[in-house]
Amino acid sequence: MALVVEKTSTGREYKVKDMSQADFGRLEIELAEVEMPGLMSCRTEFGPSQPFKGAKITGSLHMTIQTAVLIETLTALGAEVRWCSCNIFSTQDHAAAAIARDSAAVFAWKGETLQEYWWCTERALDWGPGGGPDLIVDDGGDATLLIHEGVKAEEEYEKTGKLPDPKTTDNAEFQIVLTIIRDGLKTDPKRYHKMKERLVGVSEETTTGVKRLYQMQANGTLLFPAINVNDSVTKSKFDNLYGCRHSLPDGLMRATDVMIAGKVAVVCGYGDVGKGCAAALKQAGARVIVTEIDPICALQALMEGLQVLTLEDVVSEADIFVTTTGNKDIITVNHMRKMKNNAIVCNIGHFDNEIDMLGLETFPGVKRITIKPQTDRWVFPDTKSGIIVLAEGRLMNLGCATGHPSFVMSCSFTNQVIAQLELWKEKGSGKYEKKVYVLPKHLDEKVAQLHLGKLGAKLTKLTKAQADYISVPIEGPYKPAHYRY
Amino acid sequence: MALVVEKTSTGREYKVKDMSQADFGRLEIELAEVEMPGLMSCRTEFGPSQPFKGAKITGSLHMTIQTAVLIETLTALGAEVRWCSCNIFSTQDHAAAAIARDSAAVFAWKGETLQEYWWCTERALDWGPGGGPDLIVDDGGDATLLIHEGVKAEEEYEKTGKLPDPKTTDNAEFQIVLTIIRDGLKTDPKRYHKMKERLVGVSEETTTGVKRLYQMQANGTLLFPAINVNDSVTKSKFDNLYGCRHSLPDGLMRATDVMIAGKVAVVCGYGDVGKGCAAALKQAGARVIVTEIDPICALQALMEGLQVLTLEDVVSEADIFVTTTGNKDIITVNHMRKMKNNAIVCNIGHFDNEIDMLGLETFPGVKRITIKPQTDRWVFPDTKSGIIVLAEGRLMNLGCATGHPSFVMSCSFTNQVIAQLELWKEKGSGKYEKKVYVLPKHLDEKVAQLHLGKLGAKLTKLTKAQADYISVPIEGPYKPAHYRY
Amino acid sequence: MALVVEKTSTGREYKVKDMSQADFGRLEIELAEVEMPGLMSCRTEFGPSQPFKGAKITGSLHMTIQTAVLIETLTALGAEVRWCSCNIFSTQDHAAAAIARDSAAVFAWKGETLQEYWWCTERALDWGPGGGPDLIVDDGGDATLLIHEGVKAEEEYEKTGKLPDPKTTDNAEFQIVLTIIRDGLKTDPKRYHKMKERLVGVSEETTTGVKRLYQMQANGTLLFPAINVNDSVTKSKFDNLYGCRHSLPDGLMRATDVMIAGKVAVVCGYGDVGKGCAAALKQAGARVIVTEIDPICALQALMEGLQVLTLEDVVSEADIFVTTTGNKDIITVNHMRKMKNNAIVCNIGHFDNEIDMLGLETFPGVKRITIKPQTDRWVFPDTKSGIIVLAEGRLMNLGCATGHPSFVMSCSFTNQVIAQLELWKEKGSGKYEKKVYVLPKHLDEKVAQLHLGKLGAKLTKLTKAQADYISVPIEGPYKPAHYRY
Amino acid sequence: MALVVEKTSTGREYKVKDMSQADFGRLEIELAEVEMPGLMSCRTEFGPSQPFKGAKITGSLHMTIQTAVLIETLTALGAEVRWCSCNIFSTQDHAAAAIARDSAAVFAWKGETLQEYWWCTERALDWGPGGGPDLIVDDGGDATLLIHEGVKAEEEYEKTGKLPDPKTTDNAEFQIVLTIIRDGLKTDPKRYHKMKERLVGVSEETTTGVKRLYQMQANGTLLFPAINVNDSVTKSKFDNLYGCRHSLPDGLMRATDVMIAGKVAVVCGYGDVGKGCAAALKQAGARVIVTEIDPICALQALMEGLQVLTLEDVVSEADIFVTTTGNKDIITVNHMRKMKNNAIVCNIGHFDNEIDMLGLETFPGVKRITIKPQTDRWVFPDTKSGIIVLAEGRLMNLGCATGHPSFVMSCSFTNQVIAQLELWKEKGSGKYEKKVYVLPKHLDEKVAQLHLGKLGAKLTKLTKAQADYISVPIEGPYKPAHYRY
Repeated sequence: MALVVEKTSTGREYKVKDMSQADFGRLEIELAEVEMPGLMSCRTEFGPSQPFKGAKITGSLHMTIQTAVLIETLTALGAEVRWCSCNIFSTQDHAAAAIARDSAAVFAWKGETLQEYWWCTERALDWGPGGGPDLIVDDGGDATLLIHEGVKAEEEYEKTGKLPDPKTTDNAEFQIVLTIIRDGLKTDPKRYHKMKERLVGVSEETTTGVKRLYQMQANGTLLFPAINVNDSVTKSKFDNLYGCRHSLPDGLMRATDVMIAGKVAVVCGYGDVGKGCAAALKQAGARVIVTEIDPICALQALMEGLQVLTLEDVVSEADIFVTTTGNKDIITVNHMRKMKNNAIVCNIGHFDNEIDMLGLETFPGVKRITIKPQTDRWVFPDTKSGIIVLAEGRLMNLGCATGHPSFVMSCSFTNQVIAQLELWKEKGSGKYEKKVYVLPKHLDEKVAQLHLGKLGAKLTKLTKAQADYISVPIEGPYKPAHYRY
Repeated sequence: MALVVEKTSTGREYKVKDMSQADFGRLEIELAEVEMPGLMSCRTEFGPSQPFKGAKITGSLHMTIQTAVLIETLTALGAEVRWCSCNIFSTQDHAAAAIARDSAAVFAWKGETLQEYWWCTERALDWGPGGGPDLIVDDGGDATLLIHEGVKAEEEYEKTGKLPDPKTTDNAEFQIVLTIIRDGLKTDPKRYHKMKERLVGVSEETTTGVKRLYQMQANGTLLFPAINVNDSVTKSKFDNLYGCRHSLPDGLMRATDVMIAGKVAVVCGYGDVGKGCAAALKQAGARVIVTEIDPICALQALMEGLQVLTLEDVVSEADIFVTTTGNKDIITVNHMRKMKNNAIVCNIGHFDNEIDMLGLETFPGVKRITIKPQTDRWVFPDTKSGIIVLAEGRLMNLGCATGHPSFVMSCSFTNQVIAQLELWKEKGSGKYEKKVYVLPKHLDEKVAQLHLGKLGAKLTKLTKAQADYISVPIEGPYKPAHYRY
Repeated sequence: MALVVEKTSTGREYKVKDMSQADFGRLEIELAEVEMPGLMSCRTEFGPSQPFKGAKITGSLHMTIQTAVLIETLTALGAEVRWCSCNIFSTQDHAAAAIARDSAAVFAWKGETLQEYWWCTERALDWGPGGGPDLIVDDGGDATLLIHEGVKAEEEYEKTGKLPDPKTTDNAEFQIVLTIIRDGLKTDPKRYHKMKERLVGVSEETTTGVKRLYQMQANGTLLFPAINVNDSVTKSKFDNLYGCRHSLPDGLMRATDVMIAGKVAVVCGYGDVGKGCAAALKQAGARVIVTEIDPICALQALMEGLQVLTLEDVVSEADIFVTTTGNKDIITVNHMRKMKNNAIVCNIGHFDNEIDMLGLETFPGVKRITIKPQTDRWVFPDTKSGIIVLAEGRLMNLGCATGHPSFVMSCSFTNQVIAQLELWKEKGSGKYEKKVYVLPKHLDEKVAQLHLGKLGAKLTKLTKAQADYISVPIEGPYKPAHYRY
Repeated sequence: MALVVEKTSTGREYKVKDMSQADFGRLEIELAEVEMPGLMSCRTEFGPSQPFKGAKITGSLHMTIQTAVLIETLTALGAEVRWCSCNIFSTQDHAAAAIARDSAAVFAWKGETLQEYWWCTERALDWGPGGGPDLIVDDGGDATLLIHEGVKAEEEYEKTGKLPDPKTTDNAEFQIVLTIIRDGLKTDPKRYHKMKERLVGVSEETTTGVKRLYQMQANGTLLFPAINVNDSVTKSKFDNLYGCRHSLPDGLMRATDVMIAGKVAVVCGYGDVGKGCAAALKQAGARVIVTEIDPICALQALMEGLQVLTLEDVVSEADIFVTTTGNKDIITVNHMRKMKNNAIVCNIGHFDNEIDMLGLETFPGVKRITIKPQTDRWVFPDTKSGIIVLAEGRLMNLGCATGHPSFVMSCSFTNQVIAQLELWKEKGSGKYEKKVYVLPKHLDEKVAQLHLGKLGAKLTKLTKAQADYISVPIEGPYKPAHYRY
């Protein structure tokens, strides 16, 4: 795919796989709207006042049908939007086409190369001569990273005249990042500085991106305010948990059609994502074994009847392996060599380094047989035994299925809209410093509230006497900040 | 698709969608073999002695990857095979291509018209001048029905010279059957008689087909012996139950990506299929309501915490409707009109008359919007409210997903192989009359036994004293015939 | 406790623990009546016509609150009743007191010796000079066994003059049986013959008793007709399954207060009882391992995510062991010696020989520490490690808790009432030979029907067209005899 | 029971129900020790250094077997201990007897009057002329409250000479508190001041007590440092959740023997306690309906397939009602009047005002029938319909059963020991001000760690590279403070 930006008849830029899928995308977007009451009610509540009028928003977040409804909520509130995906496999091409045709500048397709991926990210950040976006919606932090690395390189260049050198890193992906920045520096040595100046803030979607933000905050290197959307209760305790409970089996089934009942499944990590995965596998009739480093999470697994062992203990008897840790090198090629024939290995964490794909790809004599896109059988030369790796070690629920379902994404994305509104509203007030913030409890409760009606729920209302007795306002918020749900 | 039979280079007939998918089909067949220990061990045990040498077997059963492994087990045991699917949407085209290229005469593709469907059935039964097949593997009983209707028409024709008249029935599908028979009669007025004469017997896969067989046995019209494979414990209590527990959510997810958690789901019927569906939906976080006619099954549902109501009680508040009854007119167009916008309506029973598709299609002013193949939104003119119907009311797990997974189908299909072996072995012995039989308990237990090793299970062995104490042989069978598991 | 029969003011015989508990028993009986709609509706339907007028019924069945409601249903229908328990630990003394005071002759208390147990059984069968009962309600078959052994001994005595010799058996309990018969023979050498002559039939409650009956039928030694109540669907698929799912954790908690979550539990046997036990333990958060001899049941366990291994594989790592097999010598003293300190060992099968209590009691140097009644810690001399045995190896749910709850027993006992009614109605008709019968399907469905209203369920009604389509009467029965539910 | 303090042969004070139960208590304590690895390992780790040497500890916490192991851990570490229960029904008399005989001064029995309850609390706080305790272990905050109210009254008295007047409050229980303080003031007008001066701090066990502490902190009235043990993850996410999941059905079964399967159960409140209760009821086969004020918790319930409605919506169709809110007036007498006959009403929250017992007791014409202790049927005069109230509206798991099992209490109580050690160690350091603190994350993780071995779990260990990648120490703590588990 040649990397040439295309334009719609109205002049909006895009680069997608197949514009003819736009109608199909539109139909699925319409279905999703019915399942996303939080976003639709944002349109109703805020649409008339056009709060995002004048705001330029860049998003780097899986370009799916659900994201399409998010994007069109942002535009319905007055924003201008440019978008890329935050994963090479996660784009749904019909969603990308519909948005590109109807609503925003999209640069995304399923099955990008890493080179293409970063090209798309750069395109999404490029708002022309006026600098970058006013706001960023980030997922995993790649858009944020590009700006931070860009600014760093520009400072170095200004000070020393030294261009970034891709050869200074072993990491293939980071080489691409440095190359892009280097090439940019040559044309405009203030490009990322201008972005940084303009930027009001970022709202970050996921655990991994949030971790990066807190590290930057700790180091004092964070360049603009950030809202941690991931740690809204209505995000991490819903999307991460119930989303994965839904999309893990979905990905397994679409990729392999394997019967889960009766199998031994290993879930590496028992955080919110791991809890969702383990619950799904157990309910489908698998015997689930958990690996954990944290004794508290381990004890939670035990209380649910799950066995807690190390990967070494079970590597040769399990049928399905899922990584959910947010850490690296969880399943190494040496583990993979010891697995049963046709053991399934997949990752549902944000980055693809939980499984040692490099070690696998470079294992002497290993043979890759692509069953179908995102489903590969890798055969080891000595044993002739093969393992099945999903989505090349990347997020299997987005690579092999369609990610989380609309309803739970509506919770997450309503937090995104609220976070973006908050940053934009306070852009001049100084309320937000170059730090990481979470949304206040009452907004978190509001997000939940917006999703109850669709499910037919009726809340109980406190009397004044009851509210006083437990020292909360009748209308909430109802819980202290440290409450764990 | 023009209905012209094609031939492989070796001269074997076929008609499939796309022969270029054969390699893909072969790769998935190889994966499935690892998951189908019962069938593979039949190949090991019986392959060398070629017990099916000389046997011509016709199959009318969903032409999927799993069925491909069944077919190649039959051919590995010496049989010659012709095959068609028993549902217009259930064929997996890559499976059909691989089998057509490598192993048997296949007439099947995903998305047949009814006309094409019966053409395929006829092709599968046509073994040339020597008459029909020796054995039939049937699912739902359509191959068996064609022969019985054919024989009936031929008798009538012989007696009265009257040809069957398609106009005598309202049923569109039965009109096609009569047309085929009528046209056949003109060329060969003894065609189905010859088939009947040659036929050693049929083994029937599913509840619906079995019901037809018992009715014919009761009427005295059954023309050849039949083995009821459905009621092997290792079939009905596994495939129907655990298979649907797997494939119902799979179909829902692939067709609609809808979040199941939080939804209200109605399961019509709480037999083995309904039990599997209800379990899957409950585990995924839906609130499940069951409709039942049978008080015993209803009480079972209640004991699992499910509500038991009538469809009328809940039609306007539920989000997902699944029919599993084996009966007709379960969800009528009047029900559908009262449903919530975008309620999902689907069927996982064998035939497509559980949902009143005719009533829906002919409802004045109704509008059909095809989201994607097998996923349609039907909008009623008065309310502008739409419902989503899967697979046009046919088996949604095969229409929208890939049916049951290999492991559980290995149980079912091992019963099929054993049944076919038994019929063929006893073809001259008179052991089987024109009646319906079930396999003996020890064979049922053997099928289970063949599937334990793959799941790492170890059985306990009775001592002589223990076996005597409970009056069973050490090696089984362990249970009386009436035992319900 | 001296074995002297007492009499109420109205002259009815009894022997119970403490008559002062009668009021408490009455209160709990009244609560149970609300939970037993099947029995209560029998009183409404049949009470007015007094169908049991003149019938003398002996029952040998756990003398609990639920049984009290059964007994008073029999008396409400006109019967005269004498009762004993079928287990030395299962009597609830307040229930026995209330019934003895108000309704029937009761001989039962919690904690009988075996000697006392058989004395009670004999008392319950003794209707004075007129011979034995007209009908027997049996559970486990001890009343039936006493008559059969009695008749056998009387025949031998008549032929050879030889009295039965208790020394001919090692089995301590059978020695007591022979002693009773021998002593009886001295006073009346035709006692059991007279019983046999009078007896119209027996209805048997449980798997174990039914197994005995089928063996006698096979041997041709069955002396009177028997109705197998256990294999009514509304008995074995409810009481055995859902009853144990309730009462197993109840017994564990009352006896040991042990936390089930996180523990490794071994369930020996995966029949209906084992399925209920395994489900309860899994749901409470234990990791459950099943032992099985039957590959079909083993495969069912695997499909539910349970591990299937042998007892030897897991004996030293599990925390809780439950036997449910109906077989003997399942857990031997050698197993027990290898268990972890304070492992819990219990049985929920009918007889106490599943656990080798004799081996344990006679193990050299073993020490028994009674924590409280029915909860003993047994310490092995070498390891100083102890195991906790519940209810001395007898039915732990009745020994350590109160057995199954009223609602599910209402299903079982409504079958009993219907069976007794049927036997009595047909007493002269010759309909029932000396064989074992099950109740017809429509009565089974009726039992279920009687329990739906209490749970707020509403059944769907077939239309005529639907009933015809599936070839069943509109009012049922709906399933063929072989249907497994 | 006359309120006279008794003394052991060694001169230690006590007041318990029946000293002869001490041996039985000791046996159960020994069983519990095996299930409480956290406490036992505190004895091993800290016992030799006797860190509590010289410390006088007063506890006001359910005097159960598990608490006995806590008390003996405190004494094993060198403390002198006086104890009372924090609930009139929660004492296990055999536990109280064993501790009174062997280890500490105990004032507690099952079934205290409120008068007796506060007498016991006062006794536990009375360490003689030297003032009160050094440390308090509190549950619900009654010991803390007595001191705070005492100090307040003494200040008022000092200023104005006014004694507290019980008539100033309607609350019967608070009248007793004021009476005690008033009577104390007459003998020693500085009694509670002396206590306050001496007190190093309190560690509080439960949500309710913690709420009180935060309110006092907010008001600036807190008189000494407090450690909030409840909000240790290893407390609130284990004891509250998994403890109640175990003990709610236990209480229901022991009190009523009711079959849970098939019933409609309403759980008021879906916090940790409500989540545990709802999970237990659902797993036992009930259909569970949740009432909530908090939209986030409500949405969690929905995701688990539970219906969320108001009590008014379901009051007349449910069978079982459980309050878990920590609020008051949840179930009023007007609700109770509308319930089905024999509906079960119970509370598992700390205080007894969730159910309007006063309204019920004073309802004109209502009749109370005590089935057995802690199980009462209340019959309304108009309908003759009754409801069953457990434990007089107090904590039903402690009133009707034996509370939470040992293993999960070991988690909670290990936090208590660690909190007490911390307070005592830092008594002179000024580290703790008059505020509420939670334990640091690494101690929370340590508590979990101590409980893994017993369940056979094995943790995974981070490599240095992995630890660096996620920026945590190899040995933990692994999570940020805001992590929700």
